[in-house]
Formats: sequence, structure tokens, C-alpha cells
Amino acid sequence: MSKWLKGSGSDKDVVISSRIRLARNLKDYNFPHRLKGDTSTEIINKIKDIIGGEKGLLNGYGFHVLKSMSDIQKNAYVEEHLISKGLVDNSARSAFAISRDEKKVVMINEEDHIRLQVILPGFNLLEAWKICNEIDDIFERKLDYAYDENLGYLTSCPTNVGTGIRVSAMVHLPCLVLTKQINKILQAVSQIGVTIRGLYGEGTDILGNIFQISNQITLGETEEEIIRMIKNTVLQILSKERISREMILSKGRIAVEDKVFRALGILKNARIVGINDAMKLLSDIRMGCAMGLIKDLDYYTINKLMIWVQPSMIQKNNYSNLNQHEISIKRAELLRRELNT
Amino acid sequence: MSKWLKGSGSDKDVVISSRIRLARNLKDYNFPHRLKGDTSTEIINKIKDIIGGEKGLLNGYGFHVLKSMSDIQKNAYVEEHLISKGLVDNSARSAFAISRDEKKVVMINEEDHIRLQVILPGFNLLEAWKICNEIDDIFERKLDYAYDENLGYLTSCPTNVGTGIRVSAMVHLPCLVLTKQINKILQAVSQIGVTIRGLYGEGTDILGNIFQISNQITLGETEEEIIRMIKNTVLQILSKERISREMILSKGRIAVEDKVFRALGILKNARIVGINDAMKLLSDIRMGCAMGLIKDLDYYTINKLMIWVQPSMIQKNNYSNLNQHEISIKRAELLRRELNT
Repeated sequence: MSKWLKGSGSDKDVVISSRIRLARNLKDYNFPHRLKGDTSTEIINKIKDIIGGEKGLLNGYGFHVLKSMSDIQKNAYVEEHLISKGLVDNSARSAFAISRDEKKVVMINEEDHIRLQVILPGFNLLEAWKICNEIDDIFERKLDYAYDENLGYLTSCPTNVGTGIRVSAMVHLPCLVLTKQINKILQAVSQIGVTIRGLYGEGTDILGNIFQISNQITLGETEEEIIRMIKNTVLQILSKERISREMILSKGRIAVEDKVFRALGILKNARIVGINDAMKLLSDIRMGCAMGLIKDLDYYTINKLMIWVQPSMIQKNNYSNLNQHEISIKRAELLRRELNT
Repeated sequence: MSKWLKGSGSDKDVVISSRIRLARNLKDYNFPHRLKGDTSTEIINKIKDIIGGEKGLLNGYGFHVLKSMSDIQKNAYVEEHLISKGLVDNSARSAFAISRDEKKVVMINEEDHIRLQVILPGFNLLEAWKICNEIDDIFERKLDYAYDENLGYLTSCPTNVGTGIRVSAMVHLPCLVLTKQINKILQAVSQIGVTIRGLYGEGTDILGNIFQISNQITLGETEEEIIRMIKNTVLQILSKERISREMILSKGRIAVEDKVFRALGILKNARIVGINDAMKLLSDIRMGCAMGLIKDLDYYTINKLMIWVQPSMIQKNNYSNLNQHEISIKRAELLRRELNT
């Protein structure tokens, strides 16, 4: 579980993960939403065959067809950031292949025929791009992509046309939220073509002070230029977060210690914990680690818990369909077990 | 510190302490509020001499004149329930003698010339009355009490005339508060001559779900009848508290466990704790002990902490005049130190 979170990666005090996603479509097929069942299966099989026939980067992938999965299983993959909500919404026609280390995912018949995703822990956009590009090259050699000389890669939604790239970093910004600077920053970056979203992408709430920073525009710039732009934006926000962290520590160390250690005390002892409560408290202790106040916890444990406390993850790991109250009880058990070791 | 809390005593799950107080006045003197300085000193010395000359019950008492004590010292004694707010308000003329075990106190020139107090841990009104009565006998042999054949002992305030006795029990009723039955009980007992007050007596707030149950009337009934009436009232309330405790446990065990262990987690970890917060959280963990949820904490420790977290106690034990914020920090340190052992 959550294997993709493991590994090195810089700036983990702020950057939880770096992700590159490429949208691709096959030339002679309707876009997924207009596909008949047979044709969608044809596309799934085409891609499955390529993956099955390849060694190297595409070796040993697991393959999942969404219509044969339970809702809990599907939603748990979404909560792990491994597949998109859009793939689940299109369950009748969609599938995905996932590498053993979970860092590479090929989604089939989401909004586009192919969505390649590479997700790495920490701040590591260039490495993610390198891997994603290599996978794309493999597919491009075997498939006829829908491509236009002027527009570039054609996509179901015009916002992805061109490079088809979405470059994003998941960042934890508790101090910018605490010092109320976050809204000013959100406004500023939206004017330079950068979008900031909640934990589970478009239209989702900000949970646990985690933000996804990504590019708005995919057309008219090269992949490298887009990556550089997101990288620089993240670097700036990261620096602002660290400055406000130091400010909070120098101005009100005891108050922030109180906040952090109360959170830890609650997480280690509570018997019922709702999802919003869990994310808020985990955010507080993550801030405590970044501030050097908590020394016996690592980012991997907290990042992992931020995923494991999600409702479908809890249901999946308990092999049952629990109601909300039961989930909150199991969530509290999980937190006690993981944090009291 | 808080030595009087030590010792056996029944029903400690509900009853923190049992107290008997007798009001007495000397025949040929004005009541304390109308005493000149010289005369008040004369009374103080008279009583000091009796105590100094006696062995047995009055042996080894410490003697304190309030005008030579700091505000912090005086208020700390009030917070320990050893002297009354009224004694401090009359600091220019008042004094008190206190036994080594702190269970026996003779207040001089409070509202009356003499107020004898015996306070014992747990539910032990008869033993407290026995001791108090013996001390009263010693004084009565040596002093001319203001006494009227028809009215009984004369007192400064008419509500104390007659027996001059105040019988009270300090009880912890978190479950009656949680189930919202407390107001109905308060109304019912007020109709049978019983008063329920907050932690520090008349006009003080209910802190930590602790109530003082005492008699309204001192006239027309014997001491034994008054004690029996308070004892029976406490027994009834105690039984109702235990019934609602069982009801809470059977109907929502996990929710109350959550409340109790969150409180414990916060108290063991917080860095800043206000007085109301501290009393509320200590009440929660005391309830957890009464419910058998917390097993490694005893009532003595919690009862002691309910006193030690009071502001003047904290200042006294840190030998300094702290502001409110500093007190809250020291309070958190105290709670962590005492609960993390």
C-alpha cells in the first residue's frame, strides 16, 4: 500500500509528491465518452498487449478493468492518487495498468484514450517527466496517436490540447494558511497560468492544508518550459512557506508547540476520528516535523497516514462495507496503532 | 501540599471530600466586621493561646496571620479549600490555625470570631463531625460563646444562627451534567433545604463538574439531623450519577472513551492550558477513572491536580508573580509532569 510514497526526493518538508500526466488519444477512434462498449474493449486490449509485450519500463504491470472492481476498491485507488476520479466515473469502459512500485500508471479510456501518470515522492518533476516521456515514446512507436501539425496532441477536452501535459506538485502549506497569506498567493499564481487545487484535484476541498499546484495551459509552450514554470512557482511558494514557518516559530513558539503536541496527543488517544479532523490533526503534526518540534516521526509515516485515513482506504483495509461511524472508529484505531509505535 | 486529600474515605468515584464547619462567636465582643484592630488582635491571641496550650487534637498547629501573608499565599490556601474567601476579604483582622495533616482548620475573625473546619477525603461526614465537635468542646470549655437559650449559637449572619453548622460534600457529577439531568436535581434539592454551589462556594462558577452540596438551614434541627439530611441527599445524587454513568457506558461506550482519552492525550501533551480547559479535561479523565476506562490513574492524583492547576497555587509553587499566559504555560508543564509518570 502507498508504495509510490517510498523513496528519496528533495524538499519533503513542503513537497509531498511530484506528478507528470500526459493525455494521448488514438487516431481512428472516437474519444472515450462516445465509444461503444466493443470499441472501448478493443482499445483496452490494444494497450494491454503493448504493455504485456514490452520488457523494461513496462515490465510486470498489474492490469485492472474497472467494471470488475468494487466501488471501495476503485475509490481506494483514487484516494491513493493512483487513478483519477474521471477514470472511475467512466467505469463501464475504463481500465488501468500499474507498475509494481506504483509510480507509473497507464489509465485507459478516462477522458482520453490514454493517460500516462508518473508520480514520485518529494520534489522531483524532471525525473517524473523523464520516465513519463520514455513510456510515451514506447506507446508512440506502437500506436497511431491523434496528432495535428499545428495543434499538437489532440485531446477530448480543449484545455489539454497541445502537449497534453499536466505537471503538478502536491504541497503542504500549513504556515501560509496559519498566517493567512495563502489567498494572496493563490490569486497571484492564477494570473501566471498556474492552478491550485485541493487534495483530490479539480473541485475537491482543501484537506489538511495540502494543495496541488499545476499548469493551466498545455498549448504554445514546450513540456520543458511548462515544467520549469511549475518548478519555479513551487520553489517560490516553498520559500514563502519556510519563511512564515520561521516567523511563527520566532513569534509564538509555545503556541505552535501547543497546537502540534495537542494534535499528537489527540491522534494517539482518540477513539473516533472523522476525516476532516484527521487531516487537520495530521497537518498539525506534519508542521511539527517541519518545524523540528517532533523528532521521532518521519514524513513517510505522516504522508502515508494522510492517504490511509481516507474512507475507502479504511473500508478496503478492513475488508468490509462500514458506515461512517464505523469508519471513524477504524480510523482512530489505525492512527493509534501507527503513531504509538 | 494538599495533604488533607490523603487518606481513606468511601465513594471516592463521586465524593471528593466531606466538610463540617461550625460558626462560633465570643460573648463580649462585637462581630468581626465591627471590631477595632486592637480587639481583633486580642481575640486572635486568645485563641492562639488556647491552641498553644493544648495537646491532643490541637497539637502542632501552624498559625498564620493574614495581614503578613502575600495575596498569592492567601489565595492559594483558598484554592486548597483550607480557608474561605471571607477570611481573605477580612485580612486586616483575620488569622487561622491549621493542623499538620491540614484536615483541621480554625479560622479567626472571618464573618464570625471562630470558624472550625474539618475536611476529610471521600464521603465521611460523621467522622468529620466527630472531630469538629471535639475541637468545639475544647474551645467551649475555655471561652464564653455567644449563646442564646432559644436561638442557640449566635452568628454574624442570621443564616448560621442555631447550630452554626454547615455540612457539605464536594461531589463530581460529570454524567448528570452530560445527560442534562443536573438542573432538575438542583431544583429538587433546593426545595428540601439543600444548596448546591460551585467549586469555591457561594457565587462561584461550576468548574470541572464539581458541586458543593450543603445545608441551607442551621436552626430548628440538631446537628445530627442536618448531617443525616445532607448524607441522604448525597447518597441519592451519588446513586443517580452512577446510574447515568452506566447508561452512558451502555448506550455510547466508544463516544465516551473518545472523550476521555482525547482529554488524557491533550493533558499529557499540551503546552498552554487555561484554567477552565484544565478543569474540563481533568473532569473528563476523572469520569474515565470512575467508568473504569482509565486504570493507571488514581482519584488522589486527579483531585490533587484539580487543586494544583488553580492560578494562585501555580504562582505559589513557582515562587513568582506570573501573568495569565505564563500561568497557563506552567499549568501545562505541571499536568505533563504529573500525568506522564
